[in-house]
Amino acid sequence: MQQLPSQLLEKAVNEFAGLPGIGRKTALRLVLHLLRNTPEQVDSFAEALSRAKHEIKHCKTCHNISDTEICPICSNPKRDTTTICVVENIQDVMAIENTQQYAGLYHVLGGIISPMNGIGPNDIEIDSLIKRVACDGISEVILALASTMEGDTTNFYISRKLKDSNVRLSVIARGISVGDELEYTDEVTLGRSIINRTPLETI
Amino acid sequence: MQQLPSQLLEKAVNEFAGLPGIGRKTALRLVLHLLRNTPEQVDSFAEALSRAKHEIKHCKTCHNISDTEICPICSNPKRDTTTICVVENIQDVMAIENTQQYAGLYHVLGGIISPMNGIGPNDIEIDSLIKRVACDGISEVILALASTMEGDTTNFYISRKLKDSNVRLSVIARGISVGDELEYTDEVTLGRSIINRTPLETI
Repeated sequence: MQQLPSQLLEKAVNEFAGLPGIGRKTALRLVLHLLRNTPEQVDSFAEALSRAKHEIKHCKTCHNISDTEICPICSNPKRDTTTICVVENIQDVMAIENTQQYAGLYHVLGGIISPMNGIGPNDIEIDSLIKRVACDGISEVILALASTMEGDTTNFYISRKLKDSNVRLSVIARGISVGDELEYTDEVTLGRSIINRTPLETI
Repeated sequence: MQQLPSQLLEKAVNEFAGLPGIGRKTALRLVLHLLRNTPEQVDSFAEALSRAKHEIKHCKTCHNISDTEICPICSNPKRDTTTICVVENIQDVMAIENTQQYAGLYHVLGGIISPMNGIGPNDIEIDSLIKRVACDGISEVILALASTMEGDTTNFYISRKLKDSNVRLSVIARGISVGDELEYTDEVTLGRSIINRTPLETI
């Protein structure tokens, strides 16, 4: 793409183009859209970003994003404080909250063990999880990580670290999606859903 | 989508979700990506936007975006100052510049006549175009607008406004795209490319 007619525009476009999934053409479209707004609207956009970075906290207990030291989930007295669901990031927390099927606490790892990307167990919040399990009277840890090589590695690492504790460890079920046809499901998933079949009455 | 765990995050996500083609899920992904950057990087992002809005100028002659009063194209002595190419927005200027087939000047309308969207002739830079044609010794005006109802309306309006001037008016050619197969071209385009056929030697 050609040089833009303005250095200031160029800089703004480059900043947008550094975001994931946004190329230079889209970045230009977004910046030009913003430039059509009033100066106040653009400043409000810029300020929202800056404040988000400087003022958003992470919950000291579960590492979820929060405006307070302890997030609303951890400080909610109605939640089951004996269960921790381990997830990779805050989007996963929101996805599980959306199901309305889980009333326990979370632990956000902030990543997943991935030797290919240079992320080891010490780069994510595993130690603090082990500490929580040891001190906070946890009876079950649910591992809700992606069903990938990295997810399985992280599951394995955490299960090794927790093997001497009395905590019950579980992994979220893998199987065919609700509404899926068998013939379009891949073999590995279908195989897992046969191995992990559940008694009919529990469905 | 569920309420986010932080008001600050919510605000930043809402700002991003107001951009064209960006939904709340994508907005969240972008904001979380930004939050992983250093505070300096986020501030630089915010500042680039704010400065772009406050400091970018529009060329006084052609209304293209520019850091200076007169844009580099209008002030370039090597360009043909007797020809004006009329385009809708600055992306169109860049698209035509990329072809390296045009050495004249531009006139950026900043929109297109669209009664459906409440945009009339006075909302875009048509008067200043008429003034340029009358005063600046222009011999040809090339209308390079989209081949849509709005583009045709704008072409018609401009041609009416310029009919008493001595300027030569032309419209960019419509026909099948280079590399296209005839059988996959829509009838209107193919029809136009037959009506507007050109002598073989000019290709």
